[in-house]
Amino acid sequence: MNDFDFKAYLKTRQALVNRRLQAILAALGPQRELIRAMTHSLMSGGKRLRPILCLAACDACSRDMSEPRLPDQSLAMPAACALEMIHTYSLIHDDLPAMDNDNLRRGVPTCHRAFNESTAILAGDGLLTHAFYILAQPESLFPAFPDPQIRLETVAILSDAAGVNGMVEGQILDMIAQSSSETVPSLELLTRIHALKTGRMIRASVLAGAVSAKADQTMRDRLIVYAEKTGLAFQIVDDILDVEGDPKVMGKTAGSDLDNHKMTFPSIMGLGSSKKYAHNLIQEAVQALDLFEPKKTLALKAIAEYILCRKG
Amino acid sequence: MNDFDFKAYLKTRQALVNRRLQAILAALGPQRELIRAMTHSLMSGGKRLRPILCLAACDACSRDMSEPRLPDQSLAMPAACALEMIHTYSLIHDDLPAMDNDNLRRGVPTCHRAFNESTAILAGDGLLTHAFYILAQPESLFPAFPDPQIRLETVAILSDAAGVNGMVEGQILDMIAQSSSETVPSLELLTRIHALKTGRMIRASVLAGAVSAKADQTMRDRLIVYAEKTGLAFQIVDDILDVEGDPKVMGKTAGSDLDNHKMTFPSIMGLGSSKKYAHNLIQEAVQALDLFEPKKTLALKAIAEYILCRKG
Repeated sequence: MNDFDFKAYLKTRQALVNRRLQAILAALGPQRELIRAMTHSLMSGGKRLRPILCLAACDACSRDMSEPRLPDQSLAMPAACALEMIHTYSLIHDDLPAMDNDNLRRGVPTCHRAFNESTAILAGDGLLTHAFYILAQPESLFPAFPDPQIRLETVAILSDAAGVNGMVEGQILDMIAQSSSETVPSLELLTRIHALKTGRMIRASVLAGAVSAKADQTMRDRLIVYAEKTGLAFQIVDDILDVEGDPKVMGKTAGSDLDNHKMTFPSIMGLGSSKKYAHNLIQEAVQALDLFEPKKTLALKAIAEYILCRKG
Repeated sequence: MNDFDFKAYLKTRQALVNRRLQAILAALGPQRELIRAMTHSLMSGGKRLRPILCLAACDACSRDMSEPRLPDQSLAMPAACALEMIHTYSLIHDDLPAMDNDNLRRGVPTCHRAFNESTAILAGDGLLTHAFYILAQPESLFPAFPDPQIRLETVAILSDAAGVNGMVEGQILDMIAQSSSETVPSLELLTRIHALKTGRMIRASVLAGAVSAKADQTMRDRLIVYAEKTGLAFQIVDDILDVEGDPKVMGKTAGSDLDNHKMTFPSIMGLGSSKKYAHNLIQEAVQALDLFEPKKTLALKAIAEYILCRKG
């Protein structure tokens, strides 16, 4: 893809986000049980997809690319970090014994396994709450951040996507679908669950990035299309990897969805159609970026390709 | 206390806060499992102490009392509602089997008893997340609200008080103190746990109210002293009521702290000294309000007296 070195791009951004997250944790004061549990889950090597989408969307909408900001100086960095903290909180709570009861996450023991159940609940609560704090009060933590009006809009975007009409509702629908013998598997239900459970936060990631760059409504709308299609493709590929992925790369066991009788895209529409569906979605996602200057969307396009072709 | 009718004041404010909370829940869309669980816990008749403190602090700092706003038009109402939603989320999570494992709260079954554990975790998550949403986007829900700068400051105040250096840390310290056989009961540790677990949110309540009214730093400082002393007194009275209170009024069993071998003020300093301590704190809290116009602080003073003399 042109001269764009996506591997290097990803590595740099991941390192920058990680450094910033580490600084946020360090600023919480002395190491103690709660901070150790938060650190365990936040710093155990995720892909940082949401923060990187957020930073890339901000870059795509920025007016001035002749003199681009250093990535660490991105106005979207507070939102990027808040997104990862909220994402991690959701993983900690989803893994709890009362929820999915998972033992492994990102290749290491889940928070309630490494610590205990009450600490894991509180570590999740702490990450969620602190995500809003760093958006409201980024002054001492970030070299650059948007003005109050934009930060408040970011609080609205993230709390809406993570909340009762977004991720939290998606998780309860997923729980009900898995536990109820009356659930009739359907593409519609599966798509709805994913749109809420993961889609809304991926949409929030690019929207927060766009808002940080004060993007106009047209740009926001296009990025939302990009995010909705990419987000759904991400989930389809997740389901495909559970069937044919390499457990070593994924950091979790393959075939676990089948064992758990989970509704998945391959189980509903077959493996071949699932692959074709994901492929088409990514194509449409990339097309939605046509409006932007091509050189500004190299990263977003590469992320979409990566989501389709990733192995874990 | 003068002509101030505290009972009527309390009743009016409770009704207003309840009506507004009900409207917030109704705006979340169709009734479903998650909303039912949130409603169960949010609307089961709490005292609404934090919202009322917030509204009263805002009134105390308002410049114009010749033409006061109707309470429902208070600029502090979004913060008041957010405070109660965050308080309720903390009760839901504290009651969980992995935490205090309580069956009754406010006289009705706890959320995980009335629904189930996963729904209770998510109902708490939903309330916490939505509290920040209503602060960021109060437009359609409140007839009056402060400007963006103030709302962002309120997000910072609430997320700081509820988070890792406030309520969440208090809860984990409390859990550790209760579960560890090595804990040496001390007034210092007990005070520290309460300052974090309940004190910080009571402090945030008056501070958010003051900020909504654009109070100057002197007013804020006095209100913080008032809140810290009142908050501690509240907890001491709680402990006293557990020893000698009427279970019917409290909506929970008396003597449960003793049964749970909990560290309490009466167990550390004796019942008589605890009462004296609470009495002195309330006196000091009321004195901290000397700076304000007396007629503007009638409600705050009455709340302090109420906290000392309440029976449940």
